[in-house]
Amino acid sequence: MSDIQRHESNRRMSRIVVHNGIVYLAGVTAAVRDGDISAQTKSVLDTIDARLKSVGSSKQKLLSAQIWLKDIERDFAAMNAVWEEWTAADGAPARATCEAKLAAPELLVEIIITAAL
Amino acid sequence: MSDIQRHESNRRMSRIVVHNGIVYLAGVTAAVRDGDISAQTKSVLDTIDARLKSVGSSKQKLLSAQIWLKDIERDFAAMNAVWEEWTAADGAPARATCEAKLAAPELLVEIIITAAL
Amino acid sequence: MSDIQRHESNRRMSRIVVHNGIVYLAGVTAAVRDGDISAQTKSVLDTIDARLKSVGSSKQKLLSAQIWLKDIERDFAAMNAVWEEWTAADGAPARATCEAKLAAPELLVEIIITAAL
Repeated sequence: MSDIQRHESNRRMSRIVVHNGIVYLAGVTAAVRDGDISAQTKSVLDTIDARLKSVGSSKQKLLSAQIWLKDIERDFAAMNAVWEEWTAADGAPARATCEAKLAAPELLVEIIITAAL
Repeated sequence: MSDIQRHESNRRMSRIVVHNGIVYLAGVTAAVRDGDISAQTKSVLDTIDARLKSVGSSKQKLLSAQIWLKDIERDFAAMNAVWEEWTAADGAPARATCEAKLAAPELLVEIIITAAL
Repeated sequence: MSDIQRHESNRRMSRIVVHNGIVYLAGVTAAVRDGDISAQTKSVLDTIDARLKSVGSSKQKLLSAQIWLKDIERDFAAMNAVWEEWTAADGAPARATCEAKLAAPELLVEIIITAAL
C-alpha cells in the first residue's frame, strides 16, 4: 500500500489528502463570506492554489473539479468568468457544476478538486 | 509523475482527462435538450460511450458514477431503466444519485464518470 | 491495466469497486430508514465500515467523502457529531457536504467514500 499524507487535518476532515500521486482537496469555500460570487470564487481559487502548492502540485495538474453553486441561474456566468481566467492554458480539469445549498447561507460557491502531484 | 492527457479541452473544462490509468469525464448532459428523461439519458450514455472509446476505455471499465437528476421523484425510475439496459453485465460502477438543479433549465440529467483505461 | 473487482453488484451499481489500490463505494444510505439523522448517520457509517472491511480496507484509509443531507440547516450539526465520533484519529478524508434531495423521501443522509486498500 502507498501511504497516505493528511494535512490541515482534524476529526471532521483533512483539507488535503495525498495518496499514490493524487491530491484530494476537501470542498473549498470562500475565506471571506460576505463577497459576491466573483469575490467568493476568487477566494476559493486562491485557497486551492495555496493548498495544491503546499504539497507540490499546481493548477496545471488538475484532474477533476466539482462546483456547487447556491444560485446557478444567477451566478453561473460570473463564476465561469473568474474560473476561466484562473485555469492554466491546457490545464482545465474534467468539470461538473450544479446548484446545491451549502453549509452556511452566505456561502455562494464550493469547489472540490482532485489533482496529480 | 505520470503525465496528464486532456481531450476536447478549453479554458472551462476538459471533457476527458486521462492520468495514471484513470479516465475522468466531465459531467455529461444530453446533446439534444428537448427530450424527455429517457431520451436525455440515452443521449448522455451515447456520449459517455464515445468519450470512453476515444481514449481506449469502455463501459466495461467503469469505476464510479454520480448522477444528478433535475426531478428525482418523477425521473428516477425511467433513468434507471435506460441505465440498467446500458450497463455491461458485471460492469456496473459504484454509483450515487441525487436531485440537483443543472446549468440550464431544460437539462434533466447529468452523469459524471470515472473509468479505468 | 490493473483489473477491476466488483462486489455486491447488479446492473444498477456495484456497492464496492476496487481498482489499482483504490476502493470506490457507491453512495450509502441508512439500512433502517425511519431513524433521525443521528440514527441514519450511524447506520450509514456501520455499512461503510463493513464494506471497507470486506475488501481489506478500513476507515483509517479514507481518501475522500462526499456527504449529501436532505436538510443541511437542520441536520448538519447532528450529522457532524456522529461523523467526528466515528473518524479515526489522523484518518479523516477530504470532505465536502451539501444539501440534496435523495432517492427516497425518508432518506436524510447519503455518503460517498473513496479509500485506499
